[in-house]
Amino acid sequence: MELRERQLNSKLIYKGKILNLRRDRVCLPDGREAFREIVEHPGAVAVVALDEEKSVYLVRQYRYPVEKVLLEVPAGKLDPGEEPLDCARRELAEEVGLSASRWQLLTTFYTTPGFSNEQMFLYLATGLEMISAEADADEFLEVVKMPLAEAVSQALNGTIQDAKSIAGLLAAAQFLQI
Amino acid sequence: MELRERQLNSKLIYKGKILNLRRDRVCLPDGREAFREIVEHPGAVAVVALDEEKSVYLVRQYRYPVEKVLLEVPAGKLDPGEEPLDCARRELAEEVGLSASRWQLLTTFYTTPGFSNEQMFLYLATGLEMISAEADADEFLEVVKMPLAEAVSQALNGTIQDAKSIAGLLAAAQFLQI
Repeated sequence: MELRERQLNSKLIYKGKILNLRRDRVCLPDGREAFREIVEHPGAVAVVALDEEKSVYLVRQYRYPVEKVLLEVPAGKLDPGEEPLDCARRELAEEVGLSASRWQLLTTFYTTPGFSNEQMFLYLATGLEMISAEADADEFLEVVKMPLAEAVSQALNGTIQDAKSIAGLLAAAQFLQI
Repeated sequence: MELRERQLNSKLIYKGKILNLRRDRVCLPDGREAFREIVEHPGAVAVVALDEEKSVYLVRQYRYPVEKVLLEVPAGKLDPGEEPLDCARRELAEEVGLSASRWQLLTTFYTTPGFSNEQMFLYLATGLEMISAEADADEFLEVVKMPLAEAVSQALNGTIQDAKSIAGLLAAAQFLQI
C-alpha cells in the first residue's frame, strides 16, 4: 500500500528560538488534500550515565510547558552544526559536572513523529569522572544519583514521567541485562 | 533549590487543528526573565495490544514531519472532552480493527516536556477480539503482528524509531516479565 504524503506547499508560521512552526498542504495517498502542522526542532541527545556501582545520574528540573518539576536523564538540544556525541559530552558536563571515557550510541528515535521532526540520540556513558563540583550555574536543576534498578522501577511506576527517560533507562537496563 | 518559573505574560502565536503555539515571558528562579515557546497539545493514548500467544499489533504509517514510514504501537490524540480509555478503545478499533476485554493503564508520560504539554496515556490491552476485517478506510496504515519479544528487539536495535513505542513495548515487557 502507498502510505507516503507528498508536499504541495509549505508556509512558515513562526521562526523561534528553539523551534519553528510550519503548515504544509499535502497530497494524501488517495489523492485527497490535507494540512499538516509541523514543529521543526534541531534534534537532541539524552544520556544514561552509569557509574561502576551501576548507579545513574538524573536531573530534576522545572518543565514550564507541563508546569511540573520532572526527573529526567541529562539531555539537551543540538547547537547548530553540532555533532550528537559532542552535544552529549557537553550536556553531561554542564548538567551533571561529569566526563565519561566510554560512549555508546544505544539508539535513536523520534520523540513525537506525529507533529515534530525532533530526533533524539540516546547514549550510554560509562567510565565517569567528576570534572566540576556542581552543575552549570545557568541551569536550574538538581542532580540525583540512584541505582539503575531503582530508576527502572521509577520509570515503570509513574515517578519518572518523561518519555525519553523511560525509553532510555529501560533500553539501558535491557542492554546491560540489569 | 527553587526551580519553578513563573509566567509573566503569554501570547498565542498560532491556533491550529492539532496544536497551538504560545510564547510566554517567564521569571526564572534567580529573578531574570526569559521566553518559553510552548506547543499546546490535547494529549494522546498509546496501546500495547497483546494476544494470547504474546504477539502485539503494530501499525506502519507515514509520518510527514519526519518524512518516513514508521512502525509504532497504535496511538492517537484525545478528542475534546474524551476520556483516555475511551480514546484508547477507539484508536485500537479504528487502526487495528480490534476490541479488548481487559485494559490496564501501564503509565502516563510527557512526550517532550521541554517544548510541549503533550501527555500520553499508555495502556496494555488484552482479551483481544477482531471486530472488523480491516482498519478504518480513512487511515493510511498497515497492521503488523509480531511476537512481543521480537518487537522488544526491534525497539532496541533501531528498527522501531518512535519514542512512545519504545517506551511502551519495553514497559509492557517488563510488566509482563517477558
